[in-house]
Amino acid sequence: MKREQQAAAEGILYTDMYQLTMAQLYFRMGLHERPAQFDHFFRSYPDYGNHRAGYCINAGLEWLLDWMGEARFRQGEIDYLRGLRSTGGARIFADDFLAWLGENGHFEGLTLRAVPEGRVVHPNVPLTVVQGPLAMAQILETSLLNHLNYQTLIATKACRIRQGGRGRPMLEFGLRRGPELGANAGARAALIGGADFTSNVGVSRVMGFPPKGTHAHSMVQAFMALGQSELDAFRAYAELYPDDCLLLVDTIDTLESGIPNAIRVFEELKRKGHRPNGVRLDSGDLAYLSIQVARRLNDAGFPDVNIVLSNQLDELVLWQILTQIEQDAADYGVDPEALINRLVYGVGTSLIASNGHSALDGVYKMVALQDGGEWKPAIKISENPDKVSNPGEKAVWRVYDQRGKATADVLGLASEQPDPQDSLLLRHPTDHSAYRRLPPSNISGIEPLLIDVLREGRLVYDCPAIAEIRQQREADLERLDSGVQRIVNPHIYHVSLTQKLWDLKQDLIRSV
Amino acid sequence: MKREQQAAAEGILYTDMYQLTMAQLYFRMGLHERPAQFDHFFRSYPDYGNHRAGYCINAGLEWLLDWMGEARFRQGEIDYLRGLRSTGGARIFADDFLAWLGENGHFEGLTLRAVPEGRVVHPNVPLTVVQGPLAMAQILETSLLNHLNYQTLIATKACRIRQGGRGRPMLEFGLRRGPELGANAGARAALIGGADFTSNVGVSRVMGFPPKGTHAHSMVQAFMALGQSELDAFRAYAELYPDDCLLLVDTIDTLESGIPNAIRVFEELKRKGHRPNGVRLDSGDLAYLSIQVARRLNDAGFPDVNIVLSNQLDELVLWQILTQIEQDAADYGVDPEALINRLVYGVGTSLIASNGHSALDGVYKMVALQDGGEWKPAIKISENPDKVSNPGEKAVWRVYDQRGKATADVLGLASEQPDPQDSLLLRHPTDHSAYRRLPPSNISGIEPLLIDVLREGRLVYDCPAIAEIRQQREADLERLDSGVQRIVNPHIYHVSLTQKLWDLKQDLIRSV
Repeated sequence: MKREQQAAAEGILYTDMYQLTMAQLYFRMGLHERPAQFDHFFRSYPDYGNHRAGYCINAGLEWLLDWMGEARFRQGEIDYLRGLRSTGGARIFADDFLAWLGENGHFEGLTLRAVPEGRVVHPNVPLTVVQGPLAMAQILETSLLNHLNYQTLIATKACRIRQGGRGRPMLEFGLRRGPELGANAGARAALIGGADFTSNVGVSRVMGFPPKGTHAHSMVQAFMALGQSELDAFRAYAELYPDDCLLLVDTIDTLESGIPNAIRVFEELKRKGHRPNGVRLDSGDLAYLSIQVARRLNDAGFPDVNIVLSNQLDELVLWQILTQIEQDAADYGVDPEALINRLVYGVGTSLIASNGHSALDGVYKMVALQDGGEWKPAIKISENPDKVSNPGEKAVWRVYDQRGKATADVLGLASEQPDPQDSLLLRHPTDHSAYRRLPPSNISGIEPLLIDVLREGRLVYDCPAIAEIRQQREADLERLDSGVQRIVNPHIYHVSLTQKLWDLKQDLIRSV
Repeated sequence: MKREQQAAAEGILYTDMYQLTMAQLYFRMGLHERPAQFDHFFRSYPDYGNHRAGYCINAGLEWLLDWMGEARFRQGEIDYLRGLRSTGGARIFADDFLAWLGENGHFEGLTLRAVPEGRVVHPNVPLTVVQGPLAMAQILETSLLNHLNYQTLIATKACRIRQGGRGRPMLEFGLRRGPELGANAGARAALIGGADFTSNVGVSRVMGFPPKGTHAHSMVQAFMALGQSELDAFRAYAELYPDDCLLLVDTIDTLESGIPNAIRVFEELKRKGHRPNGVRLDSGDLAYLSIQVARRLNDAGFPDVNIVLSNQLDELVLWQILTQIEQDAADYGVDPEALINRLVYGVGTSLIASNGHSALDGVYKMVALQDGGEWKPAIKISENPDKVSNPGEKAVWRVYDQRGKATADVLGLASEQPDPQDSLLLRHPTDHSAYRRLPPSNISGIEPLLIDVLREGRLVYDCPAIAEIRQQREADLERLDSGVQRIVNPHIYHVSLTQKLWDLKQDLIRSV
C-alpha cells in the first residue's frame, strides 16, 4: 500500500462499515451523544490444540491510545463517506450526520479505564472499559479490539514459550513470517510477554532496544559460490564483529564442518583478546546437537559461549528439548544444567503467528446506557449462558489468598467495596449452584485491577516503559498458582461475580 | 504506535538486524555490489490440521512494490545505525559503509520477476526472483517475505472458504480479530482470494470497493436498555436504510423474536416500495436455523431476501452446513437449492487469522552470484533433501495436458526452451528414481509463469486491478484438476525439474 493510502486506511476509517451506519442511526434517533458504557474482555484462553493457556498477558493499550489520539474524521473521510451510495443509488450518509461527524468525530469525549499492560488476565474480566457518547464509543469498537486482541495473543504466546524455555534469553525473529505490518505489533507484544530482544530493526528503534541477530545461511553460500569456504565466511564475520561473533554452523554440516570451523575462529578471536559470543543451530535434532556441540566447545576451552537454538521453536518443543538434555547430556560428559544455562532461543513463526491458535476472541459489549441522567444496565442474551454479558458499570478486583497467590478475579457493581473484615461470597458467572465463600483469614489482599487512563479524552496515565511492564508481568506470575501456569492442562482460575452483580444479571435476564 | 514512529518502523528498517550486518560484511569484502540472484518460494501448502491445501493463491506483490518504491536509507536511518553499539561498546556500523548506504541504500538497482497475483501456485516454484547488488538484494529479504507470505496465506484461505461455500457471496468481517495493522493486507488478500466485499472501510476506500455491513447486537441492546424493543430497533434501521435493510435477528431469539419482527418490518418496507435485503444469523445451529428462517420468509412472501450466515465460518463449517441443508431442507418444505442460492456468508476470524495454519513458510534463497561476469549457481545443502534449494537462474513453466488442465509446474535452466514437438522429461525434485515423460500428444500448452516486473528498479509492469486478479484466479482454478482442489485430502500436484536443472543440482551437491 502506498504511504498516502496507508494514512487513509489506518485512520478513523480503520473500522467496520456497520459502526458508521449504526452511528448515523443513533444520530437520527438523537442518541448519538447519549453516554454509553462498553466493556472489552475476551471469552476464552487460547487453545493450541494439544495444549492451552491458563492465563493471558495483557498487551496493546499504549498503541491503541496512540491510534485514538490521532484518528478523527477529517475532510477526506467526510468526502469519502458523502460519496457512498446504497443499493438503490441514494446516499448512505446524510449531510447533517456528516457535519456532526466533522465536528465531533474524534475520541476526545471518551473516558477509558483499563488493566495495565503486562498483567496476567483471565476471560470475562473487563480489561478495557469505555464510557462516552454512544456514537463514538461504538465506532471505536473495531480498532480497539484489533489493537488489543493481537498483542495480547502474542504476549501470551511469548510468555508460554519463555516458560517452556525456563526463562533463558529469547530473541524474537518472526518478521518475515509475521502478518504483514501487524508483525511490528507482534514484536512489541513479544517483548512484553517474554522475548528479551527482537531482530526487527524498526521496532527496536522505536522501542529503544538494541536489535539482535546473527547471520544467514546465504552469507556462507555467497562465499562458497565464489570458491571460498565456510571457514573464510566465519573469519570474515569474526573480523568485522569480534565482540558479537555468533556463527550459524549448519549451512554444510553442523558437527563435521560448522563446529570445527567455529572453534578455529573462536580460538583466533581469543588470541586477539575477544570473547566469542556463540554458535547458532538452526536444523536437525536440536537436543542431540546441542549436547554434542556443548561437548566440543567445552573440550576446546569454550565452556561459556552461547548455544543459540532456532527452527520452529515453541513452548512444547523447548520443553521437550530441555527434558531430553536433562536425560541425555551426562551420557556424553556434559553437565545438563550448565548446558541449559548457556542456551539462547531464536523464536520466529510459532510466536509471531501464535501457531495453533491465531486469534484471541476479545469482544466489546454495551453494558450500560444513560437515560434521564441514570445508568441503565444493558445485557446481551444468548442461548449459550457463557455468552450472556455481565451488565452494568462494574468494579474488578483480584483477591489474593493467605499464601499471597491470586485466587480469583471478582466482578462486582461499581458501587460495591468489599470489606476485608467480612467473608467474600464468590458466585460462578453462570452456574446457579456454584459458589464459594472466602473467610477473611483466607484473604491477604484485594486489589482493584482497572486504572484510569483517559478522562474525557485527556490522558491521565503514564504509559510505562517495557521494562516496567515486564516487572509487572513477573510480579503477577510470581503470585499466580503454578497449576494455573502449567503449559499443558492448566488448572482453571476462578473468575467470579459478587452476589449483587449476580442478582442484577438474573433480574435483567428475567426481564428480557 | 505514533504516526512518526510508524514511519521509522515501516521504512527501510522494516527488516532483520542480520541483513544489515551481513550487508556491511559484503561491503567490507567488496562484494556489496556484486550481482546476486535470490528466489522466493514457499516450501509447503498450509495444513490446517484435519484438512490441507492442495494449491495456494499468490498475493501481495503490489503492496510489496509500493513498499520498495518508498523505502530507502535516509538521514534518520543512517543516524540511528551510527548510534548502535556492539557488546564491547564499539560502533557496529562504520562510516564508510553508512556513507555507501546513504547513497545506494534503495532498491533502484533491483530487477524483479514474479508470478502475478491471483495465480494458483505450488511449493518450491520461484514466485519472485530478485537480481541485483548483493547487499540490497539481501536487505530486501525480510520485507519481501513479510509482504508476500501473509497475503498468500489469506488469499489461499479465502479461496478455500469460497469453495466450501460453493461460490456464494462472501463478506470479509475480520478486522477486529485480525493481526493489528496487518488486517488491512488480510482484507486485500481476502478480496483477491475469494471475498466479494469487506466490512473494513479504510481498505474498501483504498481499493475502490463499497464497504459492506449490517448492524450489531449492541444496536438492539441500546433500544432495549431505553425501554424500547427489537421491533423498534429494526424499524428505525429500516427507515434509515430502506434499500439496504439487512437485520441481525438473533439478539433475543432468532425464531421467536428476530424473524417475526424482521418480517413485520419487511412488510412495511414492501408497502413503501422497497425491497428488503435480508436477515443475518450469527449464533446457534446455522444449518437448522437457515432452513427454518427460509421457511418463515417464504411463507411471508419473501422467498428472495438474503440469509446471511456468520459465526466461526470456515471451509469445513460451510461445507457441513450446505450438506445438511441438502439433506434436511425438503423435510420442512424448503427447496435446498433455492435456499443455498439465497445464502451470503460473513467470514471473520477463521479467514483473517487463517485458523489452523497461521503462517506460510515462504523463504528467499540465494541461487546465484556473479563472478568474473559469469553467474555461479549457489546451493543451500541440508540433511533434509526437501530443503536443498534448486540452484541457478531458472525458468518456470506450467504444462497443460490434453484436457487443458495444468499437469505440472516445471523448473528448468533459464537457457532452456522446451520444444512442444518433443516429449518432456519431468524429474522429481529430490527422488532420483521418480520421473515421468509427457509425450507431445499429452501437452496442450506450455506457459511461462514469471513475468518482468522491475528492470533495474524501473516498474515495467502494470499492477492489475482486483477484478482482473480475480479473473486470473478463476481462470487458473478452471484449469486445475478438481482432485487438487479438494478441501480434504487433495491430490498432489507435480512440481518437477528438467533433466538439465536436475544435473546441475546433483553436480553442486556433489561438489559441496
